[in-house]
Amino acid sequence: MERPRHQGMAKNTYMRWRLPLVCLLWEVAMIVLFGVFVRFSPEADAHWEEEKREMNLTSDIENDFYFRYPSFQDVHVMIFVGFGFLMTFLKRYGFGAVGFNFLLAAFGIQWALLMQGWFHSFKSGKILIGVENLINADFCVGSVCIAFGAILGKTSPIQLLVMTLFQVTLFAVNEYILLNLLHVKDAGGSMTIHTFGAYFGLTVTRILYRPNLEQCKDKQGSVYHSDLFAMIGTLYLWMYWPSFNSAISDHGDAQHRAAINTYCSLAACVLTTMAFSSMLQKKGKLDMVHIQNATLAGGVAVGTSAEMMLTPYGSLIVGFICGIVSTVGYVYLTPFLESRLHIQDTCGIHNLHAMPGLIGGIVGAITAAAATEDVYGKEGFIKAFDFTGAYQTRTPSVQGGFQAAGIVVSLLIAFAGGALVGAILKLPVWGDAAAENCFEDDIYWEVPEDEESDAYHMHNPDKPASP
Amino acid sequence: MERPRHQGMAKNTYMRWRLPLVCLLWEVAMIVLFGVFVRFSPEADAHWEEEKREMNLTSDIENDFYFRYPSFQDVHVMIFVGFGFLMTFLKRYGFGAVGFNFLLAAFGIQWALLMQGWFHSFKSGKILIGVENLINADFCVGSVCIAFGAILGKTSPIQLLVMTLFQVTLFAVNEYILLNLLHVKDAGGSMTIHTFGAYFGLTVTRILYRPNLEQCKDKQGSVYHSDLFAMIGTLYLWMYWPSFNSAISDHGDAQHRAAINTYCSLAACVLTTMAFSSMLQKKGKLDMVHIQNATLAGGVAVGTSAEMMLTPYGSLIVGFICGIVSTVGYVYLTPFLESRLHIQDTCGIHNLHAMPGLIGGIVGAITAAAATEDVYGKEGFIKAFDFTGAYQTRTPSVQGGFQAAGIVVSLLIAFAGGALVGAILKLPVWGDAAAENCFEDDIYWEVPEDEESDAYHMHNPDKPASP
Amino acid sequence: MERPRHQGMAKNTYMRWRLPLVCLLWEVAMIVLFGVFVRFSPEADAHWEEEKREMNLTSDIENDFYFRYPSFQDVHVMIFVGFGFLMTFLKRYGFGAVGFNFLLAAFGIQWALLMQGWFHSFKSGKILIGVENLINADFCVGSVCIAFGAILGKTSPIQLLVMTLFQVTLFAVNEYILLNLLHVKDAGGSMTIHTFGAYFGLTVTRILYRPNLEQCKDKQGSVYHSDLFAMIGTLYLWMYWPSFNSAISDHGDAQHRAAINTYCSLAACVLTTMAFSSMLQKKGKLDMVHIQNATLAGGVAVGTSAEMMLTPYGSLIVGFICGIVSTVGYVYLTPFLESRLHIQDTCGIHNLHAMPGLIGGIVGAITAAAATEDVYGKEGFIKAFDFTGAYQTRTPSVQGGFQAAGIVVSLLIAFAGGALVGAILKLPVWGDAAAENCFEDDIYWEVPEDEESDAYHMHNPDKPASP
Repeated sequence: MERPRHQGMAKNTYMRWRLPLVCLLWEVAMIVLFGVFVRFSPEADAHWEEEKREMNLTSDIENDFYFRYPSFQDVHVMIFVGFGFLMTFLKRYGFGAVGFNFLLAAFGIQWALLMQGWFHSFKSGKILIGVENLINADFCVGSVCIAFGAILGKTSPIQLLVMTLFQVTLFAVNEYILLNLLHVKDAGGSMTIHTFGAYFGLTVTRILYRPNLEQCKDKQGSVYHSDLFAMIGTLYLWMYWPSFNSAISDHGDAQHRAAINTYCSLAACVLTTMAFSSMLQKKGKLDMVHIQNATLAGGVAVGTSAEMMLTPYGSLIVGFICGIVSTVGYVYLTPFLESRLHIQDTCGIHNLHAMPGLIGGIVGAITAAAATEDVYGKEGFIKAFDFTGAYQTRTPSVQGGFQAAGIVVSLLIAFAGGALVGAILKLPVWGDAAAENCFEDDIYWEVPEDEESDAYHMHNPDKPASP
Repeated sequence: MERPRHQGMAKNTYMRWRLPLVCLLWEVAMIVLFGVFVRFSPEADAHWEEEKREMNLTSDIENDFYFRYPSFQDVHVMIFVGFGFLMTFLKRYGFGAVGFNFLLAAFGIQWALLMQGWFHSFKSGKILIGVENLINADFCVGSVCIAFGAILGKTSPIQLLVMTLFQVTLFAVNEYILLNLLHVKDAGGSMTIHTFGAYFGLTVTRILYRPNLEQCKDKQGSVYHSDLFAMIGTLYLWMYWPSFNSAISDHGDAQHRAAINTYCSLAACVLTTMAFSSMLQKKGKLDMVHIQNATLAGGVAVGTSAEMMLTPYGSLIVGFICGIVSTVGYVYLTPFLESRLHIQDTCGIHNLHAMPGLIGGIVGAITAAAATEDVYGKEGFIKAFDFTGAYQTRTPSVQGGFQAAGIVVSLLIAFAGGALVGAILKLPVWGDAAAENCFEDDIYWEVPEDEESDAYHMHNPDKPASP
Repeated sequence: MERPRHQGMAKNTYMRWRLPLVCLLWEVAMIVLFGVFVRFSPEADAHWEEEKREMNLTSDIENDFYFRYPSFQDVHVMIFVGFGFLMTFLKRYGFGAVGFNFLLAAFGIQWALLMQGWFHSFKSGKILIGVENLINADFCVGSVCIAFGAILGKTSPIQLLVMTLFQVTLFAVNEYILLNLLHVKDAGGSMTIHTFGAYFGLTVTRILYRPNLEQCKDKQGSVYHSDLFAMIGTLYLWMYWPSFNSAISDHGDAQHRAAINTYCSLAACVLTTMAFSSMLQKKGKLDMVHIQNATLAGGVAVGTSAEMMLTPYGSLIVGFICGIVSTVGYVYLTPFLESRLHIQDTCGIHNLHAMPGLIGGIVGAITAAAATEDVYGKEGFIKAFDFTGAYQTRTPSVQGGFQAAGIVVSLLIAFAGGALVGAILKLPVWGDAAAENCFEDDIYWEVPEDEESDAYHMHNPDKPASP
């Protein structure tokens, strides 16, 4: 029964030499580059005792490790369990969702440590890394996980590694332009992570458009337990998002504030998601796709402004709006994008990351433009926007303008980069599956026998299961 | 085949307008109230630099954020993943368990921030919130999640939102009476969270008694994988309970001590649960219901006393006893409550929260009454019980009496409040399901086709599955 | 239909009196011993205010709780969710995997607090415990969880409790010899936890060799969803391993560095695991067994050296090698060990813990031997290796020698201890299952009816499922 399917696949998707080659070559490259460039930051180096004396620190607790490590671990969970399990909703693509996410993220964080290091932590020819670099590497990879959501089930692991290589590079360039050249604030990455990652992924999936995908429509659905696995991903993203948006904010009030704003926005988002999920369905039933995804839009949309004085009610408003926008997107926009614009967005990242990311950028620009010394205090105002040195004369409204420019730059680089990378991924050498084998683990994974026979059995109840 | 079932349901449980209306109205109310009342606490406000100077703080690490944020995140996980997944044990109610818990908790934390804020953080007309408020809001919602356990599978999401509104309100009142008027210690909430939440929920479920529920007896069971999902909830509750009981204790030794006591109590509880689970079953086999629930009773029962000098062996004794009490409760008391008192307690919260909560209140009263300056040190004694100001002459035995009074007050408010709320929920306007549709996700949720046919197929092996 | 099976079992595996007796007796013993010996450390005691004054500490944040509690919680998750769920990959042994791991770990941490306490925290007749003791107890139990992996599915819960009692004792002795007598560094436990735990477990499983185990070969496999449950375990171990290796390192740079090194090693390990998993399979498909296990070898292998100046690229190299070694081990060595040496290693701990543990010990010895004052700084050098007091004249190369000796001691105690404990477990009184009932939950657990009939049904599609 299965032979014809396997015959068709074997030609294209045979990974035995290609995948190992790419993995090993790239890892060797990482080792060489790390050997040449990467060293410990002073706070992680054994010379720290001397550093402490020089900086007049009286306690080890002043080490940045204690300010950021708990947040780092939460972010780490979001990248590997959060994104990984969020994508297990497909009935037969759980291994690929968790496993390929694991692979691309593990490679991506190494490459991101280098790319971001060259731009931001490069001193006397060395990249000096500490816990903040680990967080930023996880952030950078987050944008790749987002893009992965658009092409989930349709690409080979090699394509994912190639995409990761390019996307991390472009991410670092875009981030450098925003943070250093435009001097934009974006601690939770509405622009750098979500807007960039989502439009990049959407462009890639547009270019990889597969006209015959509807023939595996049934495999694009979930089963009961796969929806519960996906909820593990959802909840970890939801719960830890306050850590995500506050992880690299300034010590003290900024981290504290970013966590509170995010907490509020996410809470409001759940209620409007539930409301619209029920309202937009004929029978008024809730749809797990919305609960799994749109509830998170509130976290995306305060990514830029969470560390600002957005205030708790401001956060509620943002979350309120984004739950609606995102849910409506799933119901109306995703089918439209697929049928009219040929954008096949497996996880609906347009609704969860692209639109809320844009909203987040805009909210950030407005919040920055509206900042006053009265609200922030004289010192707090300067500290919050880092209006020092070359930027000490920048006004809030100018900052708002630059924030808006940051959105545009992120979009442009996402479109251009996505088009380039999409074209590269279209080359017929990467071993991607035929349309009829999409969304199916057994092309790239050893899948347990029993379950296969079980699945088979379910669809052919009259025939006995294979022994 | 399915038509008759759906016909019967549609009349009662149609959520399309009611659920969105409640969600949206309430969220708008939250935004308005937050807009009027809620602002950042000084430690989360951009004026923190000035605050730091005034309070002579030399480092940002003195911000309460760094004392409590890791504990907050653990508590957050307990509320959303812990309670949510603990209740996924039912074979066909996983979406409702995780999803409705998500909904009610997301609403509850907002309302709790307001209610608790008015009582405890109200300054010059504003509620000033920081990380401790977030923890307390999660705590408050914890008591709603507990009550949800009693009525799991038998109520509509609207009923849950209504219950949350009232229960959070009553929780805040009860908490105010205990902590402020009686000056009672209850950092881990044996009384305020567990005793109150459980007896509230039990009263509600008593009033909502459904005589014909045994007709869906088979749906009240688990399947193999739903029991594993529930273990995710159990383990996260178990592992993070030390954070729960220590999250709002005083900085320093109190937080440290509360974590250790809880760790010890929980460890002992696992052994006696396993012992009695095996002992009380004819074939000596272990029952997952006990492992999932009774192992947690030790955490409940040191909720009041964990931050006191309960000592590690005292904690072991408490855990030892509670594992037994809780397991015996599942075997003998739950069936008795259902058949004789008409209390249908889906998750057995009487065994996990009510009885251990009472024990926790009593242990707290005894531990407080037994406190001496010798054991606590002169300063430690005053600090531990906050015997300052109006309370500086209170003796340990008087404190023990007030602690005991706290139990009684919690019980009274739980019974009265539960009766009131139960009566409200009995009104025929909230869209709850008929008895034959209880414990089934597909009344309120879009359930994946395949699995339905699978489940159907399992029970009717002779007929082909629906296409 | 099921009667014959149950008949065969009932004789051997009836737990009703034996398991409760062991659990209750041992827990009573714990209470007595805790009562006699265990008290709070000064940092968890209510006298802390006085302690603070004596030690000239200006802030509560200097309490060790704030340096280590977040890492403790991560380690706690690794032990209970990480190890517990990693072992749920078997299709019908999920309850046993999670549940027995829960039982043995809950007992083990209590006994470890005592054993390690007597060796390391014993002052004036009392064991004084704080957060570091909790971490060490979790570590100690980690070695038991590892050994459990070798005998998974083949032992009764009583055997596991007996093994835990002995293994924790031997662990504490071995740890004392290494850390105190040999003055060896091993913060992440490559030697004390992994090498010791794995070779101990392998020796035990060798002695418990069951010749007829191939008759339940099909039950030793996974099903689709059990592989996803196992990935929860894998990812939590992988993500939190930086916390594991840094949890008890010195405050400041050492904790910081240990986390970074582990992060790097684990990232590299994922890529070589994927490469070799694909390369060693005829069709080039990835094998979930490798992804679930070999990806973690990088964390094991930097357990000794992570807090040293291993450097990020050094960590990458270690991870690179261990991903290969571990994956190759799963493909070639595990079958060899089983068929030739009669070592039945259910989870392949030889590949995940034994070999990487040995590598970790060796890498630690080399890294220590290669240490120079130039790399560490004068103060950092002394602090990193604790070259004070009796050890102030020890040179790096001598330290390297002692580190190597630590490996040998760990191996010897593991073999001798494993042989002894294996012999004890072979006594016919512990209620272990017959070979044909191995890897099956329903010997020791109440298993839900439906699923049983489902499983039954799957294998006998022509017959109707039981009602």
